[in-house]
Amino acid sequence: MGLGRSSLAVALGLPRPGWPLTRVSKLSTVKHELIKTLTSEEPVLHTKISIVGTGNVGMACATSILLKGLSNEIAFVDTDESRMMGETMDLQHGSTFMRMPNIVCSKDYFVTANSNIVIITAGARQVKGETRLDLVHRNVSILKSVIPNIAQHSPHCKLIIVSNPVDILTYVAWKLSAFPKSRVIGSGCNLDTARFRFFIGQRLGIHSESCHGLVLGEHGDSSVPVWSGVNIAGVPLKDLNPDIGTNKDPEQWGNVHQDVVSSGYEILKKKGYTCWGVALSVTDLTESIVKNLRRVHPVSTISKGLYGITEEVFLSVPCVLGENGITDLIKVKLTPEEEACLKKSADTLWEIQKELKL
Amino acid sequence: MGLGRSSLAVALGLPRPGWPLTRVSKLSTVKHELIKTLTSEEPVLHTKISIVGTGNVGMACATSILLKGLSNEIAFVDTDESRMMGETMDLQHGSTFMRMPNIVCSKDYFVTANSNIVIITAGARQVKGETRLDLVHRNVSILKSVIPNIAQHSPHCKLIIVSNPVDILTYVAWKLSAFPKSRVIGSGCNLDTARFRFFIGQRLGIHSESCHGLVLGEHGDSSVPVWSGVNIAGVPLKDLNPDIGTNKDPEQWGNVHQDVVSSGYEILKKKGYTCWGVALSVTDLTESIVKNLRRVHPVSTISKGLYGITEEVFLSVPCVLGENGITDLIKVKLTPEEEACLKKSADTLWEIQKELKL
Amino acid sequence: MGLGRSSLAVALGLPRPGWPLTRVSKLSTVKHELIKTLTSEEPVLHTKISIVGTGNVGMACATSILLKGLSNEIAFVDTDESRMMGETMDLQHGSTFMRMPNIVCSKDYFVTANSNIVIITAGARQVKGETRLDLVHRNVSILKSVIPNIAQHSPHCKLIIVSNPVDILTYVAWKLSAFPKSRVIGSGCNLDTARFRFFIGQRLGIHSESCHGLVLGEHGDSSVPVWSGVNIAGVPLKDLNPDIGTNKDPEQWGNVHQDVVSSGYEILKKKGYTCWGVALSVTDLTESIVKNLRRVHPVSTISKGLYGITEEVFLSVPCVLGENGITDLIKVKLTPEEEACLKKSADTLWEIQKELKL
Amino acid sequence: MGLGRSSLAVALGLPRPGWPLTRVSKLSTVKHELIKTLTSEEPVLHTKISIVGTGNVGMACATSILLKGLSNEIAFVDTDESRMMGETMDLQHGSTFMRMPNIVCSKDYFVTANSNIVIITAGARQVKGETRLDLVHRNVSILKSVIPNIAQHSPHCKLIIVSNPVDILTYVAWKLSAFPKSRVIGSGCNLDTARFRFFIGQRLGIHSESCHGLVLGEHGDSSVPVWSGVNIAGVPLKDLNPDIGTNKDPEQWGNVHQDVVSSGYEILKKKGYTCWGVALSVTDLTESIVKNLRRVHPVSTISKGLYGITEEVFLSVPCVLGENGITDLIKVKLTPEEEACLKKSADTLWEIQKELKL
Repeated sequence: MGLGRSSLAVALGLPRPGWPLTRVSKLSTVKHELIKTLTSEEPVLHTKISIVGTGNVGMACATSILLKGLSNEIAFVDTDESRMMGETMDLQHGSTFMRMPNIVCSKDYFVTANSNIVIITAGARQVKGETRLDLVHRNVSILKSVIPNIAQHSPHCKLIIVSNPVDILTYVAWKLSAFPKSRVIGSGCNLDTARFRFFIGQRLGIHSESCHGLVLGEHGDSSVPVWSGVNIAGVPLKDLNPDIGTNKDPEQWGNVHQDVVSSGYEILKKKGYTCWGVALSVTDLTESIVKNLRRVHPVSTISKGLYGITEEVFLSVPCVLGENGITDLIKVKLTPEEEACLKKSADTLWEIQKELKL
Repeated sequence: MGLGRSSLAVALGLPRPGWPLTRVSKLSTVKHELIKTLTSEEPVLHTKISIVGTGNVGMACATSILLKGLSNEIAFVDTDESRMMGETMDLQHGSTFMRMPNIVCSKDYFVTANSNIVIITAGARQVKGETRLDLVHRNVSILKSVIPNIAQHSPHCKLIIVSNPVDILTYVAWKLSAFPKSRVIGSGCNLDTARFRFFIGQRLGIHSESCHGLVLGEHGDSSVPVWSGVNIAGVPLKDLNPDIGTNKDPEQWGNVHQDVVSSGYEILKKKGYTCWGVALSVTDLTESIVKNLRRVHPVSTISKGLYGITEEVFLSVPCVLGENGITDLIKVKLTPEEEACLKKSADTLWEIQKELKL
Repeated sequence: MGLGRSSLAVALGLPRPGWPLTRVSKLSTVKHELIKTLTSEEPVLHTKISIVGTGNVGMACATSILLKGLSNEIAFVDTDESRMMGETMDLQHGSTFMRMPNIVCSKDYFVTANSNIVIITAGARQVKGETRLDLVHRNVSILKSVIPNIAQHSPHCKLIIVSNPVDILTYVAWKLSAFPKSRVIGSGCNLDTARFRFFIGQRLGIHSESCHGLVLGEHGDSSVPVWSGVNIAGVPLKDLNPDIGTNKDPEQWGNVHQDVVSSGYEILKKKGYTCWGVALSVTDLTESIVKNLRRVHPVSTISKGLYGITEEVFLSVPCVLGENGITDLIKVKLTPEEEACLKKSADTLWEIQKELKL
Repeated sequence: MGLGRSSLAVALGLPRPGWPLTRVSKLSTVKHELIKTLTSEEPVLHTKISIVGTGNVGMACATSILLKGLSNEIAFVDTDESRMMGETMDLQHGSTFMRMPNIVCSKDYFVTANSNIVIITAGARQVKGETRLDLVHRNVSILKSVIPNIAQHSPHCKLIIVSNPVDILTYVAWKLSAFPKSRVIGSGCNLDTARFRFFIGQRLGIHSESCHGLVLGEHGDSSVPVWSGVNIAGVPLKDLNPDIGTNKDPEQWGNVHQDVVSSGYEILKKKGYTCWGVALSVTDLTESIVKNLRRVHPVSTISKGLYGITEEVFLSVPCVLGENGITDLIKVKLTPEEEACLKKSADTLWEIQKELKL
């Protein structure tokens, strides 16, 4: 949205950053004889998305977002400059095939200036046998070097936290950024919910898009499936099988949720990391924000005051997501058992969070 | 791009305009019990495209732009309020199927505020037997009621003029808006060029995307095909047939250009108007601007100083299109015959333009 | 799917039909010197979609399908050859901008040979003040000239009926084609449901994609909203407002369904016809079939045996749609009132159907 | 394209293969009470793409093809079953977000039956310091275990060879498959050309899509840039700088080609492998085949009889690509120097090829 040079000069201050450097090359006879320049370039505000971390998850996010045409500029930041430059070059070389917008990268956070959305994938990766919670200390210190830089260069951005343990790191990012809670979003159970719907769909022979249901709470080990809301075409499966999700259920639908919990570890064991599922999940969140769709997603947000939770923990609950980030929560009625599970997750997370020095 | 409430308050001043009214409904128990609101909505700058005129061309532009995901908000303006509201409702009802962003409409130009691009399709339609030039006086008076309103509400937008006669109306829009020439773009020969490439492709059994060549000058009757540049995989057809495009050519490739000139009239005769070709052409220009692609398009721009043209006429020449609009021209070498044709078009257009009272 | 020339020769028998004629042009020196041909073209089975009727609905379907990349070939049939050729030319001229596959047209149904899906939009249009049922006799006679030709040239296709009154005409198409019921699909309440979800979304400030609910039964005047299944994030609105959808509801959510019923007429009054909503609805059905998604859609299918219906009437119920067409129905539990409404629609339709001479 | 059960029974013979197994689950009360099955599933021919090798390149191809919606079914084959299953699961978990069609995998080539296109990415990866030619013996033995299986299960498919050294391996695949040459396509210089255009675009400040030029010959070290055809908007850069591409050129445009040759090695050094550029290149070729676009691509095909080449070597030349694979070549006029370079590459390749025992 062109606000003109004067108003942007304050914000940008300097020429456009990023490697490979500017598209305008040095003097050339060919260029001079071929091209007549009419105007100097002025920065125009557009949908810019920055990605911190160019590992498998970050790069899968970038390609999904580019192939869905959701961003008019992509900026990468990574401390591993060599890999970052390799990934950027590799992606840029496909630009003839994809009408790709500008893709830039730098170790300097200045490259992220004026982002609409910043996706945080940086962090030590969960290794085999390690729980998501084990990662916490290693990754908090990484966020301490990332978030203040992001907040400085894009004070109005929405943050999507993907690094694990995602609920705690979203809390950490919220604290470090001092952003309003609406603009700090943990990708959380958006993926667990997708897996849940996929496995239900496999059982019924129906595409997951038509299988409705939510997984809430902590992303991963203690997530809570909300069986009361699981439905196909508005028909609650609980009406057909009142014991669904419990131990008494002869069809053992509860295994579907166990598959959700174990599938991350399963993929980890088989290929060493996960990337596609989580990247497509993050792309889906990005679409709701960029297009201001106001769709409902189960993402990690501060849950104090909900379901008897009294501390500032982040857990996934259904949220309305639009250009302002999370604007509303949907109040889902849980059974006492479900509520107890959520509360227990909250306590576990708080035990860890309260020890953190931010 | 969140600039925060304070800086936008000046620009927006009022609640979001447009019909159907705001998505936030009046008080409702259901809503109150279902939804917990976290934050009030703040306007966020995003890629907004406005379309003036909701006839066949305007609506075909809107659907192409939406289906290609190029815009995060669409606003319509039309003096025929009934049709405009019918078209808006019809399109909105498809939003479940298409992840459509906000679509609004109003007779009040306030609905277009802070657009990135404004596409002008309003205007009397060319009727059978009428030349594009005949339309001029009817459409100049329409632009007088449109352009100042647009310029007031989106002083930094790029204007794409589609109404015919497009070259003269682009000049008129430039004068009325007082915008820099880089931000007033006539859709011009972008369509003629697409037709030219399509017909060449039909002759050779190759997709038009791989058939390169340009039609320049006036959109329509006096457009100029640049035969010297026509090539497949870098092989100039002129190298294979030195007489190509001339009367001496035994294969009469010149008919390809005659087909370009007549095809608009042909479609007019067969279905009463044209819409898909021009809408896809405008969508292509929109993509280059929105994604800051800096691709080369033959669009109508002020051509004074080129090819011996001494007056302020707009004609299509190859232009580099990005987020700032037209930033550069490509200097194509024309034969003396081609240059004479261009000059003659320029003179004809100037004869009309100089009589206009703007 | 290359099955080789021999097996296809039986099926195709003749060179590719359709106007504009084949892409291979007559002898040309340029072509001869430029291109070395390796193999003669063999027909390859691919995703071909035919559209009968090139009015506003047919053309909006075509452009949506093309822009979503769902078809590798489009064929048009219409009795109004002039309009059909105009529309085809107009669309083809955009092919440079859209990587469009082959688009052909003909008055001869041979052009539709070996289609995967055939979309029937032909038919007299509902005029102001006329109900959908009034149209029936005019349109039955049109289908008599269409369906046998389609069935002959594409004996394995899926038929999507869009012309109104859609439920009766889907029955007629089923009878005339002698296709299994799984391959004759009425677009039916897929659009009514989209409108229902849109209007609910407007009330709640949530995108229609996240507002779940179904409208079943007859497309149009006597359609039945299933309030029991309406939910957001698995929360039934009926739990929050037990009187929802009834006269006793103080918030009058029933108006949402009245808006659904009247909105077709409203658009008719405002712009003379509807096209975008229905075209995007049909494109959505097409996507489920082409990609074998097995999503659930409320479409018109034979409902004998359901909800006490004893005659061969077509009504919309939730169906699983994949590459075989409708393979399964979802059994929705209706209230006695809802069931009575459906039964009444069925009786009304049967009164008309039983008089038809097919 | 429904050919009915009888004609397909011969081709398919068995239930659908692949893991995760069929979508139809075992008996379930919920399923029985929810769903009424109308018809048994019949196989329908659709656009199926198989990918051999689930390393970085294979998976990047899969996600690009899925995100561009080019395939209605994806099948993976790999000898590393663990990784293959991990990758398949990871991708499937995103299906809620992407309307993904069926994705299957197996060590058994039966999973690839009736593919339209088979993309070969299997092969030992080029390691740092190794040339593409060094790889040849390791990868020929891999192809010997792959190609006959593919040819048996999809005798009419088009093969796209991506593994390196791509030109020799395309020859090997052609010999092993006994397919007509039109259906054995090496991805070849389609990527080198994209890099060439990207680097030219960087010099001129113009998007690579508007920078035309070709790199032909061997993919990699001895590729040949065709400077005579390099043009912007039909203006040959050679007209502006007659020495372009030579040592005499003061602006050293020849460096652009050196960058093309070195960029693969550069990315290899920085991130350990390349994937995005090549995957987007392969997706581009796939689009031309699936949609029968008949666009021109520089891909590796048998070049005997061209440019004085007398042996059966595969080199990249501009080819017309459609649903039959490569149907035509474009005859580019080369300078004597360019022709000599090509001839030398051909001789080098033949020296290696003639020793291969196939």
